[in-house]
Amino acid sequence: MRYCRDFTDRGLAKFGDSLVNFVFSLALSTYLNRPTGERVPNASLAMALELAGLRGIIPPRTDKHGKGDIAEALFAYAWLEGRITVEEAVAILRENLTEDVTHFSKKKEAVGRAFAEVYRVIKERLGL
Amino acid sequence: MRYCRDFTDRGLAKFGDSLVNFVFSLALSTYLNRPTGERVPNASLAMALELAGLRGIIPPRTDKHGKGDIAEALFAYAWLEGRITVEEAVAILRENLTEDVTHFSKKKEAVGRAFAEVYRVIKERLGL
Repeated sequence: MRYCRDFTDRGLAKFGDSLVNFVFSLALSTYLNRPTGERVPNASLAMALELAGLRGIIPPRTDKHGKGDIAEALFAYAWLEGRITVEEAVAILRENLTEDVTHFSKKKEAVGRAFAEVYRVIKERLGL
Repeated sequence: MRYCRDFTDRGLAKFGDSLVNFVFSLALSTYLNRPTGERVPNASLAMALELAGLRGIIPPRTDKHGKGDIAEALFAYAWLEGRITVEEAVAILRENLTEDVTHFSKKKEAVGRAFAEVYRVIKERLGL
């Protein structure tokens, strides 16, 4: 499959969207011990990049949706390059999820903090 | 993880939604040789169940959306039970996709026909 190390690539973001939501749904299912599925909010992905110290890969004046796209593209790139597996990302998320993930107003932050740990690993492995 | 062999289960459908969209996005990306992602239309999943001879698992008066949910729950159940892997489903889809998948009006049918082959395998392995 042909792709470049371009985290603003639309195709990487589209593929990453399905990958991120699958990984999160699997992590949440194992955390709650029952199958379930949820989309990851852009606000959580934007927060995760920030907490992981990845502000530098976000172009100036990128809105929340755009930050979500960049986070998804970065995850897709790292997975396609074999730098992180689904199993690994699921394990990191599950270890870092808290009860707040079931709380209607605290959920976004809980998801963001868990994903930040995944992005810290990706950042290190890609040398970002 | 706790779940039952109930293809009308809401949790299985929610998890299956993320699984089906990831598997399809990966298959489409390998078929097109570039990363991309797309959600699988309910109409395609409903057609896939029909073509695979799985009409029997759909309760009477289930609408298109409900059929999509049942198809997603069935896929999730088969995957959780280890009866089909992501790699296997992706390979089946890729082999059965046609150029129509890039055609705006023929796409739904092309996706439905490719998924029908995946559901034929699931049907046989689950003894449905």
